[in-house]
Amino acid sequence: MNDPSADRGRMLIYCPDRRGVVAAVSAFLFQRSGNLLDMDQHTDPTEGRFFMRVEFELPSLPERLPALEKEFAQLASEFSMTWRMTLAQPRKRVAIFVSKQDHCLTELLWRWKAGELRAEVPLVISNHEDLRGTVESYGIRFEHVPCTAATRDAAEARQSELLGTGVDLIILARYMQILSPGFVARWPERIINIHHSFLPAFAGANPYAQAYQRGVKLIGATAHYVTGELDAGPIIDQGVERVGHRDDVEDLKRIGRHIERVVLARAVAWHLEDRVLVHANRTVVFT
Amino acid sequence: MNDPSADRGRMLIYCPDRRGVVAAVSAFLFQRSGNLLDMDQHTDPTEGRFFMRVEFELPSLPERLPALEKEFAQLASEFSMTWRMTLAQPRKRVAIFVSKQDHCLTELLWRWKAGELRAEVPLVISNHEDLRGTVESYGIRFEHVPCTAATRDAAEARQSELLGTGVDLIILARYMQILSPGFVARWPERIINIHHSFLPAFAGANPYAQAYQRGVKLIGATAHYVTGELDAGPIIDQGVERVGHRDDVEDLKRIGRHIERVVLARAVAWHLEDRVLVHANRTVVFT
Amino acid sequence: MNDPSADRGRMLIYCPDRRGVVAAVSAFLFQRSGNLLDMDQHTDPTEGRFFMRVEFELPSLPERLPALEKEFAQLASEFSMTWRMTLAQPRKRVAIFVSKQDHCLTELLWRWKAGELRAEVPLVISNHEDLRGTVESYGIRFEHVPCTAATRDAAEARQSELLGTGVDLIILARYMQILSPGFVARWPERIINIHHSFLPAFAGANPYAQAYQRGVKLIGATAHYVTGELDAGPIIDQGVERVGHRDDVEDLKRIGRHIERVVLARAVAWHLEDRVLVHANRTVVFT
Amino acid sequence: MNDPSADRGRMLIYCPDRRGVVAAVSAFLFQRSGNLLDMDQHTDPTEGRFFMRVEFELPSLPERLPALEKEFAQLASEFSMTWRMTLAQPRKRVAIFVSKQDHCLTELLWRWKAGELRAEVPLVISNHEDLRGTVESYGIRFEHVPCTAATRDAAEARQSELLGTGVDLIILARYMQILSPGFVARWPERIINIHHSFLPAFAGANPYAQAYQRGVKLIGATAHYVTGELDAGPIIDQGVERVGHRDDVEDLKRIGRHIERVVLARAVAWHLEDRVLVHANRTVVFT
Repeated sequence: MNDPSADRGRMLIYCPDRRGVVAAVSAFLFQRSGNLLDMDQHTDPTEGRFFMRVEFELPSLPERLPALEKEFAQLASEFSMTWRMTLAQPRKRVAIFVSKQDHCLTELLWRWKAGELRAEVPLVISNHEDLRGTVESYGIRFEHVPCTAATRDAAEARQSELLGTGVDLIILARYMQILSPGFVARWPERIINIHHSFLPAFAGANPYAQAYQRGVKLIGATAHYVTGELDAGPIIDQGVERVGHRDDVEDLKRIGRHIERVVLARAVAWHLEDRVLVHANRTVVFT
Repeated sequence: MNDPSADRGRMLIYCPDRRGVVAAVSAFLFQRSGNLLDMDQHTDPTEGRFFMRVEFELPSLPERLPALEKEFAQLASEFSMTWRMTLAQPRKRVAIFVSKQDHCLTELLWRWKAGELRAEVPLVISNHEDLRGTVESYGIRFEHVPCTAATRDAAEARQSELLGTGVDLIILARYMQILSPGFVARWPERIINIHHSFLPAFAGANPYAQAYQRGVKLIGATAHYVTGELDAGPIIDQGVERVGHRDDVEDLKRIGRHIERVVLARAVAWHLEDRVLVHANRTVVFT
Repeated sequence: MNDPSADRGRMLIYCPDRRGVVAAVSAFLFQRSGNLLDMDQHTDPTEGRFFMRVEFELPSLPERLPALEKEFAQLASEFSMTWRMTLAQPRKRVAIFVSKQDHCLTELLWRWKAGELRAEVPLVISNHEDLRGTVESYGIRFEHVPCTAATRDAAEARQSELLGTGVDLIILARYMQILSPGFVARWPERIINIHHSFLPAFAGANPYAQAYQRGVKLIGATAHYVTGELDAGPIIDQGVERVGHRDDVEDLKRIGRHIERVVLARAVAWHLEDRVLVHANRTVVFT
Repeated sequence: MNDPSADRGRMLIYCPDRRGVVAAVSAFLFQRSGNLLDMDQHTDPTEGRFFMRVEFELPSLPERLPALEKEFAQLASEFSMTWRMTLAQPRKRVAIFVSKQDHCLTELLWRWKAGELRAEVPLVISNHEDLRGTVESYGIRFEHVPCTAATRDAAEARQSELLGTGVDLIILARYMQILSPGFVARWPERIINIHHSFLPAFAGANPYAQAYQRGVKLIGATAHYVTGELDAGPIIDQGVERVGHRDDVEDLKRIGRHIERVVLARAVAWHLEDRVLVHANRTVVFT
């Protein structure tokens, strides 16, 4: 559970399938004294697509990264790759948006404190004051930015100011406001939301009431990247639990809370470890 | 795993909540020398509804049933009950409708032969000849009734003739035709279908292709009673399995088949044991 | 999610199977103006045993309870019942024992604060100071009682003094000490422990290391009542998660922590709602 | 669901961790015109072990395999590899041993007929005649080899004669006899057994009765390679289902049967696809 070494790096690669990609990438790293720690590669023969995640160690990686990226760009161009190379250290910087409900927030902060979520959490933003105490008890800065449909523009301006340039990921931990398309567009594949249903079932408002009304026997939650279209972004993870006739809408909410916090925490951990690759509004999750 | 005794009976009761229902029902049975074996009762305080299932033994039940029903009707009327009283023996008579796929059919027949599905299976009807051999190897009658959109009326007339009056339940074990509203109306809460998705997600055709396209992380199946509205009847059971980026549409179909056969077989077993009560397009399943 | 009314009561009944038990019990309550809210009854025909849980409302129950118990004792004697009648209010009083790990404690306190665990928590006792801050941030009294094998007698004397007579249940939330048989004997079916394996596999110390060594594909946790024999008390609940070759012992511990906290919290909730009946070192859990 | 092409091959590699293994292997294949389809590699940093599975296509692989193996042996020696290179075609040849229970056998044969288990099944051997009809209805040879403790040597001699040299894998599909150490030693990592409990809990006889006695809340099944020590071989897969107080020993057996057939079929599929690598009595399963 120790933090990975400073020389640990990761690559996520997507390209049209062609012979020799793995050989080229592994030779590239080997020739630069890299050691592969974990490689997961998959070719989709039907659609002719190639996906790969590599975790490696390479001496003095932080200093050499810019040069490596430049050199790799040539190879990448040859194979028409979409790719990124990241450092496992320093940790990614995460801002959490919440409203009044604390279950997802508490789960994230507990896992963060336990060393399971390897991130920095410089900031929690809420449209309510309710969770200030919880957040500050973890030594984390809490900012109250009131937000209604009418004041959304001003609120988002303030949020953007607070986020500045030092944040890598925004987590919507049951933040009950809809972000503007403009805001979302500035954070592509960098906003994770937890929707309280098994999408695409019960998109939109009050999914538990919808689920109760339909009489489903399993309820779920879905963690996804936020895109311009509501509840339609790439799905990262989903979970379900069995429910029965003894469970009323309040019980579904209670059971749902436990699914939500597990699913969101898992999706966030995968993102932080560069395990998620988005292609055609779907995710490839290397686990 | 022995069949229950001939004196075993069951009651399913729904009524507005009122004090004294359990006392009245249990006294009714006790005064007639009945012994309660399993009672499951639930009151929904929000909506003021009372649900109960009772399994009991009562000497000479088969002979006494008509009289008992008549006596119970008085008590039922007093409490505004919707109710039914059934014998655990003889076994219910089930007809299975199939097309070309055998996985649900084989599962049902294997469980039937193993003594897990306590039913008689006098008849399998198919719009194709493919599964005749499988069905007849179990000693069960197979009838081929070709059916297209154009010939549905004639086909349903023939099906009704074959079913006659001696069938209690129709199972659509991946029968790929849509039944007419008129046919469905004659079998209220007596047709069980398996839909190959986690309803209400991906209703209609090609749910696995839809699921692949949306990039879901769990796929499912749903067993439900058939009503006039396609894929919208009361849900009896649902199941899901995790899928990933290595799974293409064919893999989803393969994984889905295993979910379908388990979910359908479980729903059918619950129906055969009189565990399912329908109210307001939802089921109460006493398990 | 509101607390039940003051007039809500529960009965747990075990007796040899005999005709008329349900009728007798429901008539008993009905004649005293009780209303049955939830009744779950099961007869084990093989071993001839009868189990029942009843949840009911009865006017002025708190005042009438002593008289009711006296009256019911006659009926109970007639049927050779083992039974108890409890009030849903006031909440049960729970003491939590912990060592240094906070995951089970935090889960319990979060659920308690969220209104999901309907209990009073007057006291947390630990053999270490580490979790004082966490506990006190919830406004709960924290007592440090150092304990080693050598000082166990003195420690247990101090613990007993702190518990006094006002505690209904002790939860061992990863309390890493073994309680003496004498201490355990004073709290029959009133101490719940979480063992970090799928019992009876890997009883004793270091279960995750044992599980890793054996190469199991699922790891688990077990909540059980504590008896004089280590890790052998009646099991209340168990859970498992899938693990793989990428998981080392530290990963198993991390994954196991999440199973432990869910399983322990669920078992405690069932106990608090009087859903657990112990017979022949096994539990009947009415859910 | 089509069979893989004749030029499809697989490699399973285990060696002490050293820089450059992936680069060497992928270059080896690339230089011989191989195309990597699926590569899954993992380094265990704690124990310094390297594991890899590669699925690839290489022109004229069947003809070139012996030469390739010879060439690869040099590279393997350099890295101290334990390894094997296999053809995805032709299918592996499987013999199934059964006694009287048909659930595991039927599941395997159904999946085989459905194209999910890519194997040839030349032979089923049983110590009873009961399942001859089932087996022969699939067009598969059935051989009755009576076997008791007293006649085991003769029986195993006859079994070995029937197996000859043309079988790659033996599946014990609820074969209720214990094989001799000598027999087992001739089939290292080539006999898969299904044990009807969640090992290591309830090894030995009557695991469901043991589970009932202990009052567990989940029951399970374990597929493992057979070794000289009973129920102690490397675990390939495990599964569990929830059980409750309404389930008696017969119910546990019934529920268990469904776990057994799923777990065994999954383990067999993984073996057939060369996804299982054994090291230190544990398996690495590349899924």
